[in-house]
Amino acid sequence: MGSDKIILTMLPAIESEMQRILADSIPNEYKGMTPLLAYHLGWEGERAGQEAQGKRIRPLIVLLCAATVGGEWRHALPAAAAVELVHNFSLIHDDIQDKSEIRRGRPTVWVKWGVAKAINAGDLMFTLAQTAILQMCQTVSLQAALRSAEILNRTCIRLTGGQHLDMAYESQSEVTLDAYWPMIDGKTAALLQCSAVLGGIAAKASEEKLIAFSKFGKNLGLAFQVLDDLLGIWGNAGLIGKSTESDLVSGKKTLPVLFGLAKKGLFYNRWTQGHILPQEAHLLAELLAQEGARDYTRKIADDLTSKALDALSLAACESNEACTALKQLAHELLNREQ
Amino acid sequence: MGSDKIILTMLPAIESEMQRILADSIPNEYKGMTPLLAYHLGWEGERAGQEAQGKRIRPLIVLLCAATVGGEWRHALPAAAAVELVHNFSLIHDDIQDKSEIRRGRPTVWVKWGVAKAINAGDLMFTLAQTAILQMCQTVSLQAALRSAEILNRTCIRLTGGQHLDMAYESQSEVTLDAYWPMIDGKTAALLQCSAVLGGIAAKASEEKLIAFSKFGKNLGLAFQVLDDLLGIWGNAGLIGKSTESDLVSGKKTLPVLFGLAKKGLFYNRWTQGHILPQEAHLLAELLAQEGARDYTRKIADDLTSKALDALSLAACESNEACTALKQLAHELLNREQ
Repeated sequence: MGSDKIILTMLPAIESEMQRILADSIPNEYKGMTPLLAYHLGWEGERAGQEAQGKRIRPLIVLLCAATVGGEWRHALPAAAAVELVHNFSLIHDDIQDKSEIRRGRPTVWVKWGVAKAINAGDLMFTLAQTAILQMCQTVSLQAALRSAEILNRTCIRLTGGQHLDMAYESQSEVTLDAYWPMIDGKTAALLQCSAVLGGIAAKASEEKLIAFSKFGKNLGLAFQVLDDLLGIWGNAGLIGKSTESDLVSGKKTLPVLFGLAKKGLFYNRWTQGHILPQEAHLLAELLAQEGARDYTRKIADDLTSKALDALSLAACESNEACTALKQLAHELLNREQ
Repeated sequence: MGSDKIILTMLPAIESEMQRILADSIPNEYKGMTPLLAYHLGWEGERAGQEAQGKRIRPLIVLLCAATVGGEWRHALPAAAAVELVHNFSLIHDDIQDKSEIRRGRPTVWVKWGVAKAINAGDLMFTLAQTAILQMCQTVSLQAALRSAEILNRTCIRLTGGQHLDMAYESQSEVTLDAYWPMIDGKTAALLQCSAVLGGIAAKASEEKLIAFSKFGKNLGLAFQVLDDLLGIWGNAGLIGKSTESDLVSGKKTLPVLFGLAKKGLFYNRWTQGHILPQEAHLLAELLAQEGARDYTRKIADDLTSKALDALSLAACESNEACTALKQLAHELLNREQ
């Protein structure tokens, strides 16, 4: 994703920054923890490499937002590292919570090292994110470091809030359509919003631009998640691919599912009778589409995408390479087919 | 513990500060997480109250250190709340890691809400600690807030390091006596050291005094843990009380055990043959004492206690109420019988 020259320069800088933070921050007597983190970040162990590292979307957004308003993107590297470390800390813990055994094609940290050490590795990763963001005082200013740390931690509170709701909804039979938004706001939108704003702060953007970055990041995150929900039922994985991977089979309370439940029609009747079997997924996806959930979800995804791109135009008015790359990245994220 | 007037004023202020941080920082849509934290902190749920809250030793050390050098201890409240929130975050996660079902006489968070929500509650508690420490910019200064946050996070790295070693040693048959120190340095000393230093920073103490506070806190923590190890085998719980509670039965690699293993004598022979049974605990404690482990451990505890009290005399030269209370608190911690 993103093959522009500027992105190809930023990607290795992001890895170096995180590697520097790990190397500098973990004292020698505790270096035994490093392999767990280096494995999860895709640097070490079986099938290490780009695929295992993930797309680094959040740190790229930090750096591109900084560059797009004319800032020196290298000054934003501590913030870029911080958001990616937060993202990965939450993945390590999420995988334990969800009992997920595979992440980016490899066994998860808890599968390899056990739950106890994986919890601890996540805690360390989170601490390193804090260490990273405070280093903004060296590249930007004391004020910028403190404000960034405050924003990052408000974001982390929303992250845990979204995760809590997601887990709480699993065992609740009645979840309203409205209840969807605080969940994905915390789980998906908060950190993307934070990434865009931190990029702006690192570039000393005006308050007006920071508000625009905030709207861009938040709506990008919401649109991304709603699109994910759409593809999870009617995308490749749901329809063309293995029906076991359909969100209908996993029982996730996504936006189209909550829409269908609110309708209290045939979909509702089947859903409330118990787990959906893989062989039913195609037919039930069709039924849900007939009840209007597919069009509804697509419309919301499109509206959020427009909001995100409008906000980006307000924030990133300079016609520079970073701006083009950022628009391209947003476009790729919001128009993907899987 | 600690019945001085100043401590009786500080204790409710610590609770109020943490309650304020929880109330202010958790957005309305995520208030569903609050009961897990309020329960763990001893404010809500079955048998809530002072016993369930613990002794609040770390925040008291923050506030007393601030007051002893003539600072306004109320300015140190964000730091006091931060260290107590870090301590409690680590307890929530430790209890999952150790599969401990009881904490301060009550079921642990994971027993009541499950592992997944307990991990998340710990993550939130940790984030709130970060939010708290950054508020030092309101009570002291921007510089103090940033420096305090850096110190707190370096401390948290050591905490995870100590915890990692503790877990790693469990499955290692050969652990040297030297390997003990980085483990307890991280698990016990780091946060007490941090508490004393943060109190000094909040009171704008000189660098010289900060070094003395650092030595005081660190040696207090080390002495506390070594004494704990001594009492765990030859104290009330180990000898007079239930022998099932002896550290020998739980198989912990404490200082006297590592001393005994290094001797490669009769204690070593029995230990390496498998788990110690409760009915053997008394006899084995006696054997370990005969091999010199009890005297060795007592001597080290005494040396560390002297170091801690010497450093405190250097830091806290003002003869004020706080200084008396702090010395009394250290004395109580280091001369306890259980």
